[in-house]
Order: sequence, then C-alpha cells, then structure tokens
Amino acid sequence: MAQALRHGTMRAGNLAVVLGELDRRGPLTRAALADATGLTKTTVSKLVADLIEAGLAVESGTVRDGERGRPGTAVRLSGHRVAALGLEINVDYLAACVVDLTREIRVIRTQPVDNRSAPPADVIAHLRALATAVLGEATTLGLTIPGAVVALPGPVDPSTGTVHRAPNLGWRDVAVTDTLALPLPVVVDNEANLAALGELWFGSGPALGDFLHVSGEIGIGAGLVVNGELFRGAHGFAGELGHVVVIPDGPPCRCGGSGCLERYAGQDALLSDGETLPDLLTRLRSGDPGALDSCTQAGTALGIALTTAVNLLDPDTIVLGGIYAPLFPWISTPATRTLRSRLSQMHPRVPTLVISAAGTNAAPLGAAGSVIQRIIADPITHLPTTQEAIG
Amino acid sequence: MAQALRHGTMRAGNLAVVLGELDRRGPLTRAALADATGLTKTTVSKLVADLIEAGLAVESGTVRDGERGRPGTAVRLSGHRVAALGLEINVDYLAACVVDLTREIRVIRTQPVDNRSAPPADVIAHLRALATAVLGEATTLGLTIPGAVVALPGPVDPSTGTVHRAPNLGWRDVAVTDTLALPLPVVVDNEANLAALGELWFGSGPALGDFLHVSGEIGIGAGLVVNGELFRGAHGFAGELGHVVVIPDGPPCRCGGSGCLERYAGQDALLSDGETLPDLLTRLRSGDPGALDSCTQAGTALGIALTTAVNLLDPDTIVLGGIYAPLFPWISTPATRTLRSRLSQMHPRVPTLVISAAGTNAAPLGAAGSVIQRIIADPITHLPTTQEAIG
Repeated sequence: MAQALRHGTMRAGNLAVVLGELDRRGPLTRAALADATGLTKTTVSKLVADLIEAGLAVESGTVRDGERGRPGTAVRLSGHRVAALGLEINVDYLAACVVDLTREIRVIRTQPVDNRSAPPADVIAHLRALATAVLGEATTLGLTIPGAVVALPGPVDPSTGTVHRAPNLGWRDVAVTDTLALPLPVVVDNEANLAALGELWFGSGPALGDFLHVSGEIGIGAGLVVNGELFRGAHGFAGELGHVVVIPDGPPCRCGGSGCLERYAGQDALLSDGETLPDLLTRLRSGDPGALDSCTQAGTALGIALTTAVNLLDPDTIVLGGIYAPLFPWISTPATRTLRSRLSQMHPRVPTLVISAAGTNAAPLGAAGSVIQRIIADPITHLPTTQEAIG
Repeated sequence: MAQALRHGTMRAGNLAVVLGELDRRGPLTRAALADATGLTKTTVSKLVADLIEAGLAVESGTVRDGERGRPGTAVRLSGHRVAALGLEINVDYLAACVVDLTREIRVIRTQPVDNRSAPPADVIAHLRALATAVLGEATTLGLTIPGAVVALPGPVDPSTGTVHRAPNLGWRDVAVTDTLALPLPVVVDNEANLAALGELWFGSGPALGDFLHVSGEIGIGAGLVVNGELFRGAHGFAGELGHVVVIPDGPPCRCGGSGCLERYAGQDALLSDGETLPDLLTRLRSGDPGALDSCTQAGTALGIALTTAVNLLDPDTIVLGGIYAPLFPWISTPATRTLRSRLSQMHPRVPTLVISAAGTNAAPLGAAGSVIQRIIADPITHLPTTQEAIG
C-alpha cells in the first residue's frame, strides 16, 4: 500500500517535471525531455502519452534534437483543452478573462461599475453573471476550466475565501468564494499580488529582474517578485504600499492610520470631484496647471513611499501599473526625482521606474495565470482518475 | 571523467545531506540516517566515517533507533575540531567570536573604541590584532578555523569584500577583506543582516516565525528572516530601516536623504551630548523626564517606520536588538502603541515586539554562524583532498 502510494507520488512528480520543462523551454522532443529530466525514454514516452491524453500537451511538428542535431517530433503545451478563469472585483470595475495553458489570452471582459454604492452580495452576483457569460464563451471555444482566482482590493485569506477588509469597497469579512458559488473551485487573492504576477507572466516578465509592481487604483497596492516568485509575507499581507506612512500627522486614512500614501497618490487624491481618469488625462495633455500640479504632488509622495520601499526591499526595477500606467509621463518624473535625490548617495544603482506592460488587466490575468501555474505544478489532478488508480 | 566528476558531486551532496540531518535533528544512529536520507546503510557508514575522520562528526553514546526502539551508537556533530570566526566593526566597538560546528560559543571578545575618529586602515589593523588574538585562543582549544565573516554597518558587496558606504563610520568603498589580510578566507556582510541570523541561530530562533530583527545602533538596520532564511533583496541592500522616511521635510541625514528614522531613533538622537548608554539607562531608571521623553519620541518614530515595514513585509514578530535591547522597557511601549493605533483596523494580528535574545553580540555570532552554515552545506571542502580525489 505504501509502495503503491509512493509509485503514484513518483508518477505525479514526474508528470509535473515533464510539463514544467515544456512550460519553461517550449517544444521539445521526447529524447530532449529524457536528457533534461534524467528519466528514461520509456518513462518519458509514457508520461507524454498521459499528458497528451489529458489535453495538457500536444505533438507539434519537428524540431532539431538539441546538440545532436537529429530532427524529431516535438511535444509542447496544448492550448486547446485546459484553461483558467481570472476574475477581479475592484472599486469601479469588474473584470473576467480566460487564459489557456500556453498563457494565451482567449477571452477578456471588463465592466465599469461603481461598487462602492452596492452591497457586497449585489457586487458578487454581478461578478457571477459576468463569470458565467465568460465561462460560456470558453465552452464554445472547446475549453475546460478547472479553476478560478478572484482578485480583490484588500488583504484576503485564501484558505477561507474571505476578504478580511477592503476599506475602499467598505467591505469587512465578506465570504467571496461562498457567495460567488461558481460551479468550479474558486480561490481569492489580493489584487496587487495578482497584478505583479500578471506583469511577470503577461507583461515584461523576467527582464525586470526582482521587481516591485505598484497597482495605482483608488487604493495603492504593491507586489514584490523575487526570483520569479511572489513575496507574500507571513500572513499574505505584504506589499500594502498604500498604507506606507508619508506624513505621520497627515489626514486620516480609511485604514485607521493617517498620512498614508493613498491619501496623496490614490485615484481619489488625483481626480477632482466628479472627474474621471480620461478627464484628467485630457487636462494633462492640454497642459492644465492644476492637473500637472496634482500629478507632481502625487508623484513626489509616491517617490517618498518608494524610497522607503527600496530601503526595505531593494528591487531591481519598479513597475508602475493601474492608473499609473496612463499617468506614467506625469507621475514618473517627480517620483524618479525624489527617489534619486534620496537614494543615490547610498545606493550604487537607484531602481528604474518603468510602465506596466500588462496594463490595467494585470490583476485578472495574474489571477488566471496563477491557476495555470497550479495546473502545471500538479498536472495529475487534471488527468482521468482511472489512470491515477492504475499508477 | 564526466562520470568521475558526477560521482564526486554525488558524494559531496550526500555528505551535505548526512551532516545536514545531524545538524537539524541532533544525534542519530547510522540506521536512522539511512532511513532519513534514503541512502543505503553501507553508503551512510562510509560517509559517516569520512565526516568523523574530518572532525565534523563524532560517535556519541547510545540512542534508541527511532520507531524500532533498538538501541544503537549515535553520531552527532563534533564541536571539537572545526569552528568559525565572527568579526564586527561597528561605530563604537569591535567584536570577535569563535563558534564551533555545534554552534557553541567558545570565545567572545568585545572592545569599546571610537572608530569614527580613526582612518579605516587603523580600524582594520585594530580588528586584525583582535582577530589574531582570538584565533590564538581557538588554536589553544584545538580548533581549526576555515573561514571568517566580518559584520559592517553599511551596504556591502560580499563578492569583492568591499563596504560601499558606511556613513556613520565615514567610510566609502573600503576594501575590508584585502586590508584585513587574515590567513584565512574572509567574507564581509551587513551588520543588520548578520544580527538577524544571530538571533535565528543563537537567540529565540524558529519560535519567532518570520521575523524582522531591528539593530538599533548609531545607525539602524534590519534583517528579515522568512522561512529560516534571510531576505536580502536584489543587491543585498534590503532592510535599511534607518533610512525609512519618517518626516519627509525633517532634518538632513548622512545618507543624503532627510527625515530618516535614524535621525529620530538612532543612538545619537537618544543620547545627550557626551552621554553614554549606561548614563541614559541610569537616568531612565531614576525616572528622569528628559530621558523618558527622549525614549518616547524615539519609540514613536520607530513605531511609524515599523508600521511601514509591517505594511510592506508582514512579519510575525519584530525583534528589537542592539541598544534597543537594554532600552526595551522604554522604547517598546510607544512603538507598540503607534503600531497598534495604525495597523489594528487592517491587520487581524499586529506583530508583537520582543527583546533580542542574542543581545549585543547578535552580529558577530551571526557572522560566525554563517560560516558554520556554509561548512554544513558543503562539508567536502573541509575533508582531506586525497579522499576527494579517490571519490
């Protein structure tokens, strides 16, 4: 019995190793997979057959077989069958996307909606309708969706599916997963964490080195990616950049503190009453002094908080996402000036500010991507169970 | 040749696995080591013989052999032959210690000295004299020292042995390793990083969970330990808590910024002109209002910087070390009050402040401990070379 279990565990591990190689390195022959993994060609052939049967891999043309130069039939990840659902609830929009196993974006939908004025149950019902529509589109495309992740603007407890506190939504201890009640496993995670992963997988990626991704929204979150992995902290609450203290005796913040970055550089601080982001961009492009001044003040405050973040976290690069992406030309200059004046004497290289390549969809894409990541790390749960029993 | 290399590499890896088990789990029989590592008893016996021959392990009495209950001869780490040298240059003292493979402290020496008024070469010559004396004591104890680490109060480049900038010493690009010229390999590292590791290995250790260790000195550094490992950032400069911005338009700091934590809570801010730490402690114990006020102000500023650190890093525990250890009763209360008032609404559990158990010797102990860590991770470099050639 223990022996059988060990055999099953070994097969699960080997399936993950093979699928991981295809994910990292692209199309490979069975011989190259055997070389790369140290498994025998017979074992690799059996594992590849299982992955193809499950729709996770597919044969794909002919490639040269590494150093030896012999051409062979390549195997690669399949985007045809298995995909993932990424969802986001934010203060003024909902989003849903479907990403296949090759990380190609197959469906993406965003709905502007003011979620501050609606009860949590209504917001979640609205997301359920959006998710159901998107799942329908995925089915039409022949895709199977084994799981979803929901991005939320606040610290969450992924183990219970609950958002502890989302002050900008006015939410407290909302059981998102249970209320959403989708017909597939759903996990919740923090929006800023998922946006950082979205940038890693769908944006500029590994070229950024270790990076801090800043999500400027009504709240301001950040996600730190170190060696290709998200740094979450002891309880998953790391990266709350919006509540870094900029002026200790500044105005009170919805978090219970005062003088937090969010009060100086969040969307509500940047926009005048009743103004939308496109309105502000129009004013900025026309050189409106009030709009320019507002961005200079926000960028300077952001620079102070980022100085602190660099002192504590020491990233290679800082990525500005969310509303800071369209505002980049006006926000990044004062932020960079502040960073340089405060850091250049102690730091041989002050981190560069770059614009997010994943853009405003970073969080839902990171959400779907994290489901894909789980499938690739543990493919056996997506194989027919009869095969698993046989070992 | 490739085969021989692979065999040598495998032996090196297996030696590390066996030594690592003895380090983590304490005395074990050869049978228990075989069970734990998956190696055959014959292989384990050969590896253990090599480790004993090299003075890294020793036979030690009889223990029960795990579940089976048969008594057997135990093997454990040996503290008799191999040890490590830990050194520290700080602004107002030098320190040296010797720690053996079992992490027992065998020698520890501290010398108060004002290093601000001396040229770097003189300070380093002074450390060389201290290190040489301590190495002599180690030889008397029968210990061999294969390496040393020097703790320095500033960002360092371990690859070149250079401290980039130590503003409180007035140092810039000082080649510490080359100037020290000890007859053994020497690596440099940041004092706050090493103090955090000192607390992990010689203080309260794993019971702290993921912790931020704060080294209050003339400068203020911090080291974050996550899953038993130090978080260093992309260039090894993470944890510069002293330069977290507390008041953006505050007084200029030696780092080139302004309003940094160091200006409000560093040793120079806490002590009156000409006052020593014992003087301040005497005043505090007698209830001197000026001294109490000074600690309240410093503790409040520390609380603001720690609020920011918790928002970004999310540790379980915050350890106050360096001068904050003796000042704990007066510093921790205002710091905790500030943390709670700013964090309790968003964070289900605000991190606890605890006093450093490793105390003022945390950095040199962490320095020696990191040499021990390297020996345990790669014991083959400490075995006679003839054996290595035989494979």
